[in-house]
Amino acid sequence: MTNTIDSYAQLHSPPRILMGPGPSDVTQNVLNALSQPTVGHLDPFYLEAMDGLQSMLRSVFKTENELTFAVSGTGSAGMETAVVNLVEPGDSVLVCVNGVFGSRMADVATRAGAVVNTITKPWGQVFTTTELKDAIAKHTPKVVGIVMAETSTGASQPISEIAEVVHNAGGLLIVDAVTSLGGMNVAVDQWGIDVIYSGTQKCLSCPPGLAPISFSPAAVVSVEQRATKVSSWYLDISMIANYWGANRAYHHTAPINMTYALYEALRLLHEEGLDACFARHALNHQALKIGLETLGFTYAADPDHQLPMLNAVNLPDAVDDAQMRSALLEQYNIEIGGGLGELKGKVWRIGIMGHSAKPENVLGLLDALEKLFMENRINCESGTAYNAAKAVYLGGCSD
Amino acid sequence: MTNTIDSYAQLHSPPRILMGPGPSDVTQNVLNALSQPTVGHLDPFYLEAMDGLQSMLRSVFKTENELTFAVSGTGSAGMETAVVNLVEPGDSVLVCVNGVFGSRMADVATRAGAVVNTITKPWGQVFTTTELKDAIAKHTPKVVGIVMAETSTGASQPISEIAEVVHNAGGLLIVDAVTSLGGMNVAVDQWGIDVIYSGTQKCLSCPPGLAPISFSPAAVVSVEQRATKVSSWYLDISMIANYWGANRAYHHTAPINMTYALYEALRLLHEEGLDACFARHALNHQALKIGLETLGFTYAADPDHQLPMLNAVNLPDAVDDAQMRSALLEQYNIEIGGGLGELKGKVWRIGIMGHSAKPENVLGLLDALEKLFMENRINCESGTAYNAAKAVYLGGCSD
Repeated sequence: MTNTIDSYAQLHSPPRILMGPGPSDVTQNVLNALSQPTVGHLDPFYLEAMDGLQSMLRSVFKTENELTFAVSGTGSAGMETAVVNLVEPGDSVLVCVNGVFGSRMADVATRAGAVVNTITKPWGQVFTTTELKDAIAKHTPKVVGIVMAETSTGASQPISEIAEVVHNAGGLLIVDAVTSLGGMNVAVDQWGIDVIYSGTQKCLSCPPGLAPISFSPAAVVSVEQRATKVSSWYLDISMIANYWGANRAYHHTAPINMTYALYEALRLLHEEGLDACFARHALNHQALKIGLETLGFTYAADPDHQLPMLNAVNLPDAVDDAQMRSALLEQYNIEIGGGLGELKGKVWRIGIMGHSAKPENVLGLLDALEKLFMENRINCESGTAYNAAKAVYLGGCSD
Repeated sequence: MTNTIDSYAQLHSPPRILMGPGPSDVTQNVLNALSQPTVGHLDPFYLEAMDGLQSMLRSVFKTENELTFAVSGTGSAGMETAVVNLVEPGDSVLVCVNGVFGSRMADVATRAGAVVNTITKPWGQVFTTTELKDAIAKHTPKVVGIVMAETSTGASQPISEIAEVVHNAGGLLIVDAVTSLGGMNVAVDQWGIDVIYSGTQKCLSCPPGLAPISFSPAAVVSVEQRATKVSSWYLDISMIANYWGANRAYHHTAPINMTYALYEALRLLHEEGLDACFARHALNHQALKIGLETLGFTYAADPDHQLPMLNAVNLPDAVDDAQMRSALLEQYNIEIGGGLGELKGKVWRIGIMGHSAKPENVLGLLDALEKLFMENRINCESGTAYNAAKAVYLGGCSD
């Protein structure tokens, strides 16, 4: 198993156009920040960078939650952090499942020893407040988990009225905002969310590797009152809070350079402005949607509940999933995502997240699809989809 | 809590000389690799990079273990991955504790539901095979955990004869190689280690954020025979193996850019050659040790069991811990580490790990210490420590 030196060439990664479900395009600014000299995790410079990062995360989450930081893992580690800190063995947990990530949360909670009940909806649909109220009355959960932006279906779950229903029954609300944060409004304090987490590689346009997270004061109290230790040492916020809090006490060595990158990604987002960024996502979604519909794609999610940044679309019959996605990557350098779980082979997941949400990406993809459709003798009129999308940009548009 | 744009300046990290317990100095090559364009986690280019990374990890671990990969978290996530996959609730686990990281492993195993027994030694000492044999006979553990390079004390635990003792009693051996891997010999197959993990920010000289890990075939069988699910979804190798194995099936979005960096760090290590790299660590350790002893420092670890890359030294009485470390950082840009746990305030932890193990770092630190000693009127003869170390380099040396 010994290898010669010659076996390992330096990597030269190809400059892809990232329009899948994440990672999204990362700007040169963020890549430059990522490659700044590494310092120690207790260096005064780094502690200041942490302060800035936390402050910017609070403003993106629209929260004053003190315990707002970045978990040293990807979005799924954020999910696990949310669940394992709130849940003790035997606790009743209700998870809303209408796609892959709801199922994942139920699995995580089960592993943490919770008694998990689920309510389900067909993939692509969202939950109503009434449905939640009924399920909560039935199961009296300590914790309710729901996905705001279901990356497997492109469905956008309204959150604003849910927390009240959960709180009225004495529960705590966990929200998955992996795909939504930074691309649409997420108002943690106004909506009353108790724990929310996200990932860096979606609308924040940072490489994957960290999971922004925020705990409400009520969630923190709940963790403080646990009778048992959190099942994960690595993700136990009672210790992590000592590092991200005023003490700055060592817990584990933080991913220094990833923190630089997330800081810069958040700085760019603040420079653009949250509202301007959300409007940009909405506009590019509108253009992409018209173009895709012109080509015969239909949306997998409820028409009233489509995410702007993640477009899950049913394939026209004539389209060969794998062959066409390979051609997009090989001939046009464009990555889009295939379906997950029960939608595998049936949908494409086209992301316009963060820096990927721009006219050149949307128009470039539509142009490439038109050419591939014609090459493959799939019914398509040259330039129609492209021009329909272009008209949206020329006319301006609100969703 | 809304912040204006002006609150957030771009980061410009200071170019520190990293001689603490990690992170270590990162070369420009590795920083350049880190900032290459992000691609998707299923991109053919990325899958090839994963192959190369796994192959190089196998050669650094000296193993043919198929399941060898990088956990998407820091070294402590590696520890948790090792423990939670092998341990089911009620399993007997024996952990050897002679420092902070042994204690941490016992905590992780307890949280995973194990019945944990520990054997302890005073900090700085290591365990004998006889001590282990007795403890194993008493507790008949399913899993034995031991730290090879105890970063809190600088003690180097011999591993080669331990696996046989563990295996003879039907157990599995977990070894913590966070600080040792890449800086001294680690021979997984020859020694018979079942699960071994490390971190990227020590002797591999890569930023923190990933944890190299390897599971023996026996360890994999043990995971396959579990009656219960692994307590952590994020770290469950039965799923992760489908991504790092032939299927390349999505589990979670891998930290793409960190993988580039680790690949390059491993490539540089292979270019230098493992034996040459180990000899470089030993030589720089010898020079540093003579210099520190000349200044009145003594080693915290057993003389026969001192790690080359992590030098935990007792402070001379006249040295003010915090004041002197601040002065080193502020006046000389040099980071060294303070003590952890029961050695807090009593020792310094001076790392010469990976790219930090070079004469200019060792001599620069000794020169700075001599100057600070004189400024603070601590007994010290100018140039003596520096020259003693320099003589080691001029004469060549083996430890």
